[in-house]
Amino acid sequence: MPKMIHMNAFAQCCIGHHSIGQWKHPQDRPLDGYRSVHYWMELARTLEAGLFDALFLADVHGTYSVYKGSRETAVRHSVQFPSNDPTLIIPAMAAATRYLGFASTYSTTYYPPYHTAKLFSTLDHLTEGRVGWNIVTSYLADANANFGLGEVTPHDERYDRADEYMDVCYKLWEHSWEEGAMVRDVANDVLIDPARVHQIDHVGPHFSVPGPHMCEPSRQRTPVLFQAGQSGRGVQFAARHAEAIFAIHPHPAAARKALAELTKALEAVGRARDDVRYFPGITVIVAATDEEAEAKFEACQRYASPEGALALFCGWLGLDIAAIPPGQKLKDLHTDAIQGLLCYFAEIDAEREWTVQEIGEYMSIGSVMPKVVGSPQTVADELERWMDESGCDGFNLVPVTQPLGFAEFGQWVVPELQRRGRMPLRYEGDTLRERYFGEGQARLPAGHVAHSVMPDWPQQ
Amino acid sequence: MPKMIHMNAFAQCCIGHHSIGQWKHPQDRPLDGYRSVHYWMELARTLEAGLFDALFLADVHGTYSVYKGSRETAVRHSVQFPSNDPTLIIPAMAAATRYLGFASTYSTTYYPPYHTAKLFSTLDHLTEGRVGWNIVTSYLADANANFGLGEVTPHDERYDRADEYMDVCYKLWEHSWEEGAMVRDVANDVLIDPARVHQIDHVGPHFSVPGPHMCEPSRQRTPVLFQAGQSGRGVQFAARHAEAIFAIHPHPAAARKALAELTKALEAVGRARDDVRYFPGITVIVAATDEEAEAKFEACQRYASPEGALALFCGWLGLDIAAIPPGQKLKDLHTDAIQGLLCYFAEIDAEREWTVQEIGEYMSIGSVMPKVVGSPQTVADELERWMDESGCDGFNLVPVTQPLGFAEFGQWVVPELQRRGRMPLRYEGDTLRERYFGEGQARLPAGHVAHSVMPDWPQQ
Repeated sequence: MPKMIHMNAFAQCCIGHHSIGQWKHPQDRPLDGYRSVHYWMELARTLEAGLFDALFLADVHGTYSVYKGSRETAVRHSVQFPSNDPTLIIPAMAAATRYLGFASTYSTTYYPPYHTAKLFSTLDHLTEGRVGWNIVTSYLADANANFGLGEVTPHDERYDRADEYMDVCYKLWEHSWEEGAMVRDVANDVLIDPARVHQIDHVGPHFSVPGPHMCEPSRQRTPVLFQAGQSGRGVQFAARHAEAIFAIHPHPAAARKALAELTKALEAVGRARDDVRYFPGITVIVAATDEEAEAKFEACQRYASPEGALALFCGWLGLDIAAIPPGQKLKDLHTDAIQGLLCYFAEIDAEREWTVQEIGEYMSIGSVMPKVVGSPQTVADELERWMDESGCDGFNLVPVTQPLGFAEFGQWVVPELQRRGRMPLRYEGDTLRERYFGEGQARLPAGHVAHSVMPDWPQQ
Repeated sequence: MPKMIHMNAFAQCCIGHHSIGQWKHPQDRPLDGYRSVHYWMELARTLEAGLFDALFLADVHGTYSVYKGSRETAVRHSVQFPSNDPTLIIPAMAAATRYLGFASTYSTTYYPPYHTAKLFSTLDHLTEGRVGWNIVTSYLADANANFGLGEVTPHDERYDRADEYMDVCYKLWEHSWEEGAMVRDVANDVLIDPARVHQIDHVGPHFSVPGPHMCEPSRQRTPVLFQAGQSGRGVQFAARHAEAIFAIHPHPAAARKALAELTKALEAVGRARDDVRYFPGITVIVAATDEEAEAKFEACQRYASPEGALALFCGWLGLDIAAIPPGQKLKDLHTDAIQGLLCYFAEIDAEREWTVQEIGEYMSIGSVMPKVVGSPQTVADELERWMDESGCDGFNLVPVTQPLGFAEFGQWVVPELQRRGRMPLRYEGDTLRERYFGEGQARLPAGHVAHSVMPDWPQQ
């Protein structure tokens, strides 16, 4: 039986997220909406009507200032700038929905683990078990400076520190409060049994946290753990911790290859492929017919800002390609950095002779995501091909105009996938973890590393 | 003309806030409610129906572990433990209301200023200008350890650091983005004019923050600045920064004296008494008649947990009084610490021979707040007396049972105060700052220190 498709929606509390320039599109609403709690509540209802599993929220703490050695382009085109705190809209969206999950990016570099544990426990309480955490270690030099942290810590060291960070969080979420510690014993005037609330007494190279956790256990205890690292160390981190992975691949075969590597890494730590849900990012433009969808795509291209897309891209890479003449074929430039960059784009289209201008244009709609443009049938065909050729578990949908891109997917593509038996007809299970792993799976599974970071409580 | 009364509501995302033990009261709802977004949205609607100006939210990051040298009592009676993050419920409450303001406690010790500035800008956007910040420097050793910070910084040094912290926030809120930087120039594909978004380049002894601010200017730009310090250095800090002060006094004359000192401190930095709103905390139990109110008070006392109140009190003081026999008259104990402690209680009632047991009983309802118990007329009389004798601007209402204590105040006391012309008949102005300082005053006044922490932008 072919696998069911999990759909997640990708957004950020900003104006231009992955399709820079659409603020000029008459149907794009984030320009005023991203600051409005009502916009987000309506978006949540739209996603729930479309049976999305979760809204996945990105965040950033600095500007993309590599392109031309300045943030000027990123500011002009509002490239993920300004960007508001994503955690604050989640409880309001939870109040407006019943099943939709929410995953927020939160950095292990900028926040102490005691705070992060309290924040996600609070969110899990307020959403009644519908929250996930996208664990990031942060890499932007501009952001690091804003937090007074000096030089960015080297990549692999960031992940070593993050491993210990996770251990602290696991101790607080899973080991501080015993089940049933809240005894509610009116006759003896005991609300909480002090013998069942424990210090964690964590002392490690990076953190010292005695505890106990400030929050009683929430529905999921530990939020669903998302991760997006695709580097060697990132995959190792994901294999240890992640329950859901957001990835970006140019085509299904590349995703299949990455999944094979992930599976090996999972097995090396005693986990299995099925312990993790894998979601490639994808950009979809759908209309009644292929022709109408193409016309819609072309309309969006007219509003796009390729230079803004390049500012985003250079910020990600840490490489300024502004000095390369826009029409210069990149394959004729023989630096390692340029050839490395070309790897991704050559996989998108090996025939194309990629120039900086072409990269800017390609990236201005859905950035580096693969783009699927067509009728509901065409889109469903392509999503099914991705599922079956890559072995992934669903997608992270990166819209062009917002919230229209989400609404149209729900109205047109979802019914088509339901007809094909690739999407469920209704939600099952209440929590986000159950959404991904089935009813009754609200808590981390028994084999997860979170359970072994501290000895068990002595039996009462 | 007598001054109008501003009413604020005081709460925390916990079960037992200032009336420990009420979780056993059949009408007390926080036990399950404090974790529910719907509970808070309903509470917000209740407060708005009662014309409250704002809901003032406390927070804490550790347990009260001084009493008996252990957190055991605080855990057993759920003394502000567990306690969830208060900022996360504000946008949902804003969505449920139109006028009610929200002030959240946030610590200058535990969060980097760049984060705090982004957080409050986001809240001010999502509430459309209805947010305030209760600036605290934090003092609990238990909390400090959880953030890996070692010894608590001495009191005055914490305020020195907080002064610089405020300067960083002011630079981000008031000086990074010029008014009108968001030009929305479709024809030239310019959303934001980069020449009008500035780095702040703050470098000081405690913080280094280049900026720019991640958020565009919100309705109020700077949240309404609350402060609650009553120490010498605390008053100096408040005189420099605060727009609203939450204080605790045993009787109106004490408030009057503190206000006189505050006025001097304000004038020393070129501000005036009227630049600040002053709100003593007060606990009210109201019913149709004085007798019914007394009966209600006695019912609450039956559910109270005096030992939990003592755990709270000892945590605040950093003084363990558990070894003192419960019936021992404190005036007969001649240590400085005990005599200092007695000062407050002697002012509440000089006739009473205060013992540890009596302090626990007094504090178990509304902690150290003055308690007003009676009919709507009796309560209104007492609030008017407080206003007129102390010169304060209103109150911070500390309820006993929740949310009933807020609802009954709105239903019974507010109409009586309206009849007497001491409360308005409707809300005026949209933002929290306008609520306190009048329509049109959405931004910090011209003379506030925030405006002078950086030179003006050069004229375009």
